[in-house]
Amino acid sequence: MARIGIVGSEGRMGRALMTLLESSEHTLSGGIDRGGNVAALADSSDVLVDFSSPAALDGNLHAAIGAGIPIVIGTTGLCQHHHEAIHRAAHAVAVLQTGNTSLGVTLLAHLVHEAAARLGPDWDIEILEMHHRMKVDAPSGTALLLGEAAADGRGIALDEHSERGRDGHTGQREEGAIGFASLRGGTVAGEHSVIYASEEERLTLTHVAENRSIFARGAIRAAEWLIGRPAGRYGMPQVLGL
Amino acid sequence: MARIGIVGSEGRMGRALMTLLESSEHTLSGGIDRGGNVAALADSSDVLVDFSSPAALDGNLHAAIGAGIPIVIGTTGLCQHHHEAIHRAAHAVAVLQTGNTSLGVTLLAHLVHEAAARLGPDWDIEILEMHHRMKVDAPSGTALLLGEAAADGRGIALDEHSERGRDGHTGQREEGAIGFASLRGGTVAGEHSVIYASEEERLTLTHVAENRSIFARGAIRAAEWLIGRPAGRYGMPQVLGL
Amino acid sequence: MARIGIVGSEGRMGRALMTLLESSEHTLSGGIDRGGNVAALADSSDVLVDFSSPAALDGNLHAAIGAGIPIVIGTTGLCQHHHEAIHRAAHAVAVLQTGNTSLGVTLLAHLVHEAAARLGPDWDIEILEMHHRMKVDAPSGTALLLGEAAADGRGIALDEHSERGRDGHTGQREEGAIGFASLRGGTVAGEHSVIYASEEERLTLTHVAENRSIFARGAIRAAEWLIGRPAGRYGMPQVLGL
Amino acid sequence: MARIGIVGSEGRMGRALMTLLESSEHTLSGGIDRGGNVAALADSSDVLVDFSSPAALDGNLHAAIGAGIPIVIGTTGLCQHHHEAIHRAAHAVAVLQTGNTSLGVTLLAHLVHEAAARLGPDWDIEILEMHHRMKVDAPSGTALLLGEAAADGRGIALDEHSERGRDGHTGQREEGAIGFASLRGGTVAGEHSVIYASEEERLTLTHVAENRSIFARGAIRAAEWLIGRPAGRYGMPQVLGL
Repeated sequence: MARIGIVGSEGRMGRALMTLLESSEHTLSGGIDRGGNVAALADSSDVLVDFSSPAALDGNLHAAIGAGIPIVIGTTGLCQHHHEAIHRAAHAVAVLQTGNTSLGVTLLAHLVHEAAARLGPDWDIEILEMHHRMKVDAPSGTALLLGEAAADGRGIALDEHSERGRDGHTGQREEGAIGFASLRGGTVAGEHSVIYASEEERLTLTHVAENRSIFARGAIRAAEWLIGRPAGRYGMPQVLGL
Repeated sequence: MARIGIVGSEGRMGRALMTLLESSEHTLSGGIDRGGNVAALADSSDVLVDFSSPAALDGNLHAAIGAGIPIVIGTTGLCQHHHEAIHRAAHAVAVLQTGNTSLGVTLLAHLVHEAAARLGPDWDIEILEMHHRMKVDAPSGTALLLGEAAADGRGIALDEHSERGRDGHTGQREEGAIGFASLRGGTVAGEHSVIYASEEERLTLTHVAENRSIFARGAIRAAEWLIGRPAGRYGMPQVLGL
Repeated sequence: MARIGIVGSEGRMGRALMTLLESSEHTLSGGIDRGGNVAALADSSDVLVDFSSPAALDGNLHAAIGAGIPIVIGTTGLCQHHHEAIHRAAHAVAVLQTGNTSLGVTLLAHLVHEAAARLGPDWDIEILEMHHRMKVDAPSGTALLLGEAAADGRGIALDEHSERGRDGHTGQREEGAIGFASLRGGTVAGEHSVIYASEEERLTLTHVAENRSIFARGAIRAAEWLIGRPAGRYGMPQVLGL
Repeated sequence: MARIGIVGSEGRMGRALMTLLESSEHTLSGGIDRGGNVAALADSSDVLVDFSSPAALDGNLHAAIGAGIPIVIGTTGLCQHHHEAIHRAAHAVAVLQTGNTSLGVTLLAHLVHEAAARLGPDWDIEILEMHHRMKVDAPSGTALLLGEAAADGRGIALDEHSERGRDGHTGQREEGAIGFASLRGGTVAGEHSVIYASEEERLTLTHVAENRSIFARGAIRAAEWLIGRPAGRYGMPQVLGL
């Protein structure tokens, strides 16, 4: 049972974390947003979970170091200098930074890499995703993350081998290409499939999120796992022992 | 047990039909290709199945009329004047013309129309297809046929409401749009799904072809059905009693 | 905008209905449970939605008749004499009784019937469902409802043609059988597929519920639809115009 | 380009291998069945592929040893003493024995093991398979192989944790169980899915065989890989570098 402090408590993820903690075995030590006292929150917490903003990152890292507790960073939109700050903080405390806190997606990316590494280029790779009707970009960030995992497993550069937005006279599929297709509709929280298609057989690896609370659940699991770890920089794969 | 004559016996569909007839309860009365005597073939057949070429259409229709037997036309690439010739021939004999002889696809198109007619515009429609790596165009002709069925059920024009090739910053999905996405890989004979996605529920109608012989099988089923019908023009939906 | 009264407000469906009405265009005229004054609720409502208990059915029907308003009955576990009471009440007011208020499932059952009626017995029918780990029976009630729709479309009796719980040496599949299989796991709200499998092609009709609120949403849609209808007995298919 | 000799050439797999070799880059050095001269075949081959019968195993191994060439054993129904004979032969030549020659299924089993090892027991495991209507047993051998991979990854014994043939009042799902469900219909060559279902997310790993020739293709790939290997016993995972 840990005391967990939420930074960025009024954002969508912050609210989801607060709700989830209410019904968990852990204690919510507090939630703050812009203008809150993060040092005080750190002092009364065993771990911080930060889904605030890049601008707040430095202060949050200092608070964790000051209190000597680990911190999970789920904030998106980080630049090079943010990563450098995380790197320095990781000399003093345990820091886990990630762009996707879902355990299922983390494992999927690992399996996608493994399959791409084992199967030859005669296995065509396609990535399909479906999201709700409000999503404004395609493919999804997670689809691109899976594409990177596949490209990395195959030892190629994703941006040189992507086939996106097929329409009209496309010609035959390029050997070695990684294709992307996006479906939009209803309230679908997020579904991703990576398909490996060869001569008369196919392997498909799929993740389905029933709703977005899985990201909050994964962040709490990461926070639990981080407590008691030595100083250093960590990622979601390590939470799964990968 | 019928005597079936194949016109266009050396094309891909013609060969598939000849192979299938060998192991069927029917008799292959003969197969001809360019330069063959279609009048003689018609005289020894109960029905003709024509997968030859638009140029041969007139001769094939005359042979059917001369012998007083029905004819199934599966030839693609027909123009307005070909349809007029079919129309005239249908005064004398039973003619079934179709661009897709699969029974499953024919039924799917009917169900897609029905679902689109019953569900309101708050049910987003998406059409997904997967085909082998050699296919050079997207979406598939069958996907477009299903899109037409959905648009017709909804009472809208497909070309004004299609969303194809989503990629990059697409913005939110348009209300009433019909989306298309295409996957390519391996040796997939053809898979089509029509998805209706609403608030927290989804209906998906899917057809899977294990290989292309289903088109030959459907053509023979159409030929059986056509024997003994009165003169007139028919389509695949009627074979299913739709 | 209608005034909707909920009977059985403390049950799972009652609570879901109350929550949904808060964010809808309709007014919640009130919610009562055991011991509440249903006559008073009816007087201040345009329609009643009843998810209470069979024991309360008579009182609820009388209240609707007394106030001259329609009533949606979603209560399960009804016996013959309950149906007779509904039948009598339907002479005075509009009554819609159903065991499943999902619009998607209602349409799916219609499409399943249609497909079974059009496809011959060489198309094997299989029904697959997945539900959360807490579900204690198999197959689900909705799977059986879909099986009934398929059997009815085919003109056979379901209980004479079911294949359930396949395990061990089963022998070849019986021609004309309708097979059932059940998956259990996680928090899956409910997924149902009806598969028609023939020679080298397959048609699959699938419904996915993202969560159980779709039943509340369908009940409210039924209630809206029922207001202003003449006295009589109705079902969910009519809400979809089937 | 290798000279490949087929033992058991008149069985289903033998015939599939002969057909496939005709259109491959390899040479068919010959095919024999009961009563054929396996020693002579071995002398003119670079590798033997044996899909004959357990009774012929000893003779086939001796022929391979006599000619100093490797041998792929795909024969099923082997007992303890057959495995001992293989073990002895593997001191002299390279022997690859396997119950499933599909590369896709081999990789799937590896991924299933990996996922089961990484995900905790709060991820329920279900295994679904579909096969053609002629199949007489359930679950399929491949489904059980995948169940073994999952159980092994989790460190449990499959036979103590299987839930098969769910039907009727089953009670809630047992924690840690591995469920099996079987669909039968049409001409489906073989589809297997392993589902991991947790709180509001799911991972599904699926293999689809378009037809049974994938087993012949995998056997030839194994034979190619085996040529030039040192004496020893091998399995399909090694062909994929696992």
